[in-house]
Amino acid sequence: MYSLREVNPMLRGIRVSPQWALQRHSEQITALLQQGEQKPFKEVIDISSGDSHRTGIKPISFVRQVLSVCLYPELLHNDTLPVDVRQRAQRLLGECDGGSVGSYTDSCGLPHVQRSVAEFITGRDGGVPSYPHNIFISAGSQIALKVMLKLLVRGKGVSQMGVLTPQPCPHTLPMLLEEVGAVLVPYQLSEEQGWALEPGELHRALTASRGHCRPRALYICSLHLMQGSSLLGALNDIITISPYCPFPSLTGHVQSRKSIEWVIQFAAEERLFLLVNEVYQDCVYGEGMEFMSYKRVLFEMGQQYSEMVELASFHSISNGIIGECGLRAGYMELVNVDPAVMVFAETLLCTDISAPVTGQIALEIMVNPPRPGDPSHSKYTQEILTNRITLAQNAQRAWEFLIGLPGVSCQPVTGGIFIYPRLSLPPEAVEQARSDGLEADVLYSQSLLDEEGVCVGAGCEHGQREDKYHIRLCVLTPSATLEKVLACLGSFHLHFLDQFSQYA
Amino acid sequence: MYSLREVNPMLRGIRVSPQWALQRHSEQITALLQQGEQKPFKEVIDISSGDSHRTGIKPISFVRQVLSVCLYPELLHNDTLPVDVRQRAQRLLGECDGGSVGSYTDSCGLPHVQRSVAEFITGRDGGVPSYPHNIFISAGSQIALKVMLKLLVRGKGVSQMGVLTPQPCPHTLPMLLEEVGAVLVPYQLSEEQGWALEPGELHRALTASRGHCRPRALYICSLHLMQGSSLLGALNDIITISPYCPFPSLTGHVQSRKSIEWVIQFAAEERLFLLVNEVYQDCVYGEGMEFMSYKRVLFEMGQQYSEMVELASFHSISNGIIGECGLRAGYMELVNVDPAVMVFAETLLCTDISAPVTGQIALEIMVNPPRPGDPSHSKYTQEILTNRITLAQNAQRAWEFLIGLPGVSCQPVTGGIFIYPRLSLPPEAVEQARSDGLEADVLYSQSLLDEEGVCVGAGCEHGQREDKYHIRLCVLTPSATLEKVLACLGSFHLHFLDQFSQYA
Repeated sequence: MYSLREVNPMLRGIRVSPQWALQRHSEQITALLQQGEQKPFKEVIDISSGDSHRTGIKPISFVRQVLSVCLYPELLHNDTLPVDVRQRAQRLLGECDGGSVGSYTDSCGLPHVQRSVAEFITGRDGGVPSYPHNIFISAGSQIALKVMLKLLVRGKGVSQMGVLTPQPCPHTLPMLLEEVGAVLVPYQLSEEQGWALEPGELHRALTASRGHCRPRALYICSLHLMQGSSLLGALNDIITISPYCPFPSLTGHVQSRKSIEWVIQFAAEERLFLLVNEVYQDCVYGEGMEFMSYKRVLFEMGQQYSEMVELASFHSISNGIIGECGLRAGYMELVNVDPAVMVFAETLLCTDISAPVTGQIALEIMVNPPRPGDPSHSKYTQEILTNRITLAQNAQRAWEFLIGLPGVSCQPVTGGIFIYPRLSLPPEAVEQARSDGLEADVLYSQSLLDEEGVCVGAGCEHGQREDKYHIRLCVLTPSATLEKVLACLGSFHLHFLDQFSQYA
Repeated sequence: MYSLREVNPMLRGIRVSPQWALQRHSEQITALLQQGEQKPFKEVIDISSGDSHRTGIKPISFVRQVLSVCLYPELLHNDTLPVDVRQRAQRLLGECDGGSVGSYTDSCGLPHVQRSVAEFITGRDGGVPSYPHNIFISAGSQIALKVMLKLLVRGKGVSQMGVLTPQPCPHTLPMLLEEVGAVLVPYQLSEEQGWALEPGELHRALTASRGHCRPRALYICSLHLMQGSSLLGALNDIITISPYCPFPSLTGHVQSRKSIEWVIQFAAEERLFLLVNEVYQDCVYGEGMEFMSYKRVLFEMGQQYSEMVELASFHSISNGIIGECGLRAGYMELVNVDPAVMVFAETLLCTDISAPVTGQIALEIMVNPPRPGDPSHSKYTQEILTNRITLAQNAQRAWEFLIGLPGVSCQPVTGGIFIYPRLSLPPEAVEQARSDGLEADVLYSQSLLDEEGVCVGAGCEHGQREDKYHIRLCVLTPSATLEKVLACLGSFHLHFLDQFSQYA
């Protein structure tokens, strides 16, 4: 009956990750609760993804005030709004065609936002220059990453493009590689070494890929834990250090400068394009740690590298402290990329038309916040600080709680917004999951959701090795919410272990 | 030096359309004016694209008021905002996770917005049912179209997927087909017959494509002019008819029901997937005309068609009367599509994460405006009506002016937001353009921009036949702006003809 019975053969392998299935199930439970169905819990708490507003982290007032004025410029005359809010809104409206956020922008974003991002990066990187024409604004970092993957992809069979990809990796990445027709070449992070990238691992992964595909790019996200780091002095640091503080990750761990240098040397030797996810750059809270961008390290390694290694760095308004996932905006900075290739990047962004203007405005504020002396500076700084303290305290609290549970281990966390504990599950639970056609950490997460109304991420979706089970929790959430989650998780966990040991 | 010297071979043919080059040039001129450079004009007026806010059409207050409250919920307590604004905002915030527009939504959009769209379509189509699970919310209609093209595409050489595409077509479409790897199979609209689609043309185009590719889809956008239609009674109609009023287009012409039936029969016979661009559905103003959706006609043609022809219909907040291009949202309704294919559509939307929530909110209001009795009903209706009257009057005014110019012909317009006059250019101008490596209508548009500061679209980018030159003007603009444009265009046109006849 259908003429479109079978989709594009290239896409047949694409699958929604277990994360989406869990979240869909979580929404169904919420709908049942709203219809009055009785459950052992009154609401579902979903801390599976990096969506901090979902569980109650408040938006940053200045961001929202400026946006409300930009959308409804009558508010320019509203004296109850701080004057710098109205000035910023007026300035930003002046950058929009026709003074309306309803107009299209260039496909790479508003030139003013590109300039603000370039200034922010230059400041962050101790003066290593950034230029507006290298900044591409997109509707989130994923869109820009897709553009670069599309430009890099080519070949079939043994010459099909491969992308060296960390395990664990962001859950959206395997699907994206499948969509563009690239081969995922896994490299392992060593959990026992605090999620370190061990020096020989990239080389091993590259060698193992020979005969299967041709790696052309290296994706970096979740890496090395610095030696001797701890959270003990984190709060003092937060108050005194710059807001831009080594390289945080999916697993809550931060890459050392030495490790970044190894990666850059490897990329240079193997002529790999570096795709660097730096979306957690404002979420580093380990003692004495500062965020260090790949670009800065690259430039400090001398001309041999700084003029040769091609790099795309991604950042967004979604995953950081401001947590504006729903507004959809991010940027990509291209370094050492052939100008002809940059034209293609812009052209591909054109087919998506342009990033939403409301997101672009939030991005501009994130990179160019109120300055000392501005009426909103104190409140803005306080709100950001409050979120950062919540994050750091929650991470410590969650870590301490989790390592106290039987069968749970967890590496210390120093950055990012997630904690990624490992579960030693009873063989009976693993067997049960197998007979249900599930990974054991999905079974665990589903049971936790059904019994306690708590939705966590399952480690399998991050591409971890078989027989290693993890769950992922977003700790950028109100402390009271975290306490509820930990209480539920604690009692569920004991019950889960108990239930399966009964079968043993 | 570069490892990424050559981009993906599949993408090498992709080019930015001349429209973007013109708009970039237009922005450069604006920047020079702002730096104090002297020009014969004080500002650039860009009516090349369907971006009505850019030239001064005002946003609809209710849309913006609700958005400002959703972004800054403190405004829920602001008594100067109408109560239905605050109620709507509260309702919509209740649909967002954590009550924040900063949270991610499902990749197909907020379920509440899907339900509102389905109710709107059911009402519009006289009760032909629409279901929320067939509605896919995306960041603009282009994104959803790209998803469907990606699912349809396959094959190489003579079996590569072809898409029957009208000439003229939207300027973004050729680039999109190139990106996904589909072959553009052109079918011609007959300008002499008022941009009618002549019955045998689809068959001719399909036959001509054999041996080159395998057409699997038919894209519809710009079609037939109804017999005897005129604008004379348009204003009265606007005041009395429903806001949802045959099928308007890129060229300002509206397809008859009979023509829609032919297209559906052809699609059924040839098993083509119908991709229907209905983004101008609220911009039909020809006398006695009402918008008629492809879906409604399909369902009224009986089971033989209504249960068989696969169709995707696209609509957005950008191109209609509300003109919210910058907020980026639209929807796609799938009809008769295999449920397994719909799962893939959702999965592909997942890789873009989700549509911006601010755009989704504007979409919800567009399809579910204030009702009679609501405090904002009168103002909302008046603002929409004002824009529609401006559009209808401008279209008539521009048409009358353009047909009065030597060497210009123009079919009457009855819908959409553009007028698409044809230029008979002197052979010397055509020769000059050729020696400059340009299409003659691009030369014309560039000269108009340089001399008068008026930016119009060049017809070549819509894929018109060689030696037929057109320009495209958006007439959804304030009447005073249109008058300036026409005055500049009139004097430039005479000068342009004069200049080239001197060389003859």
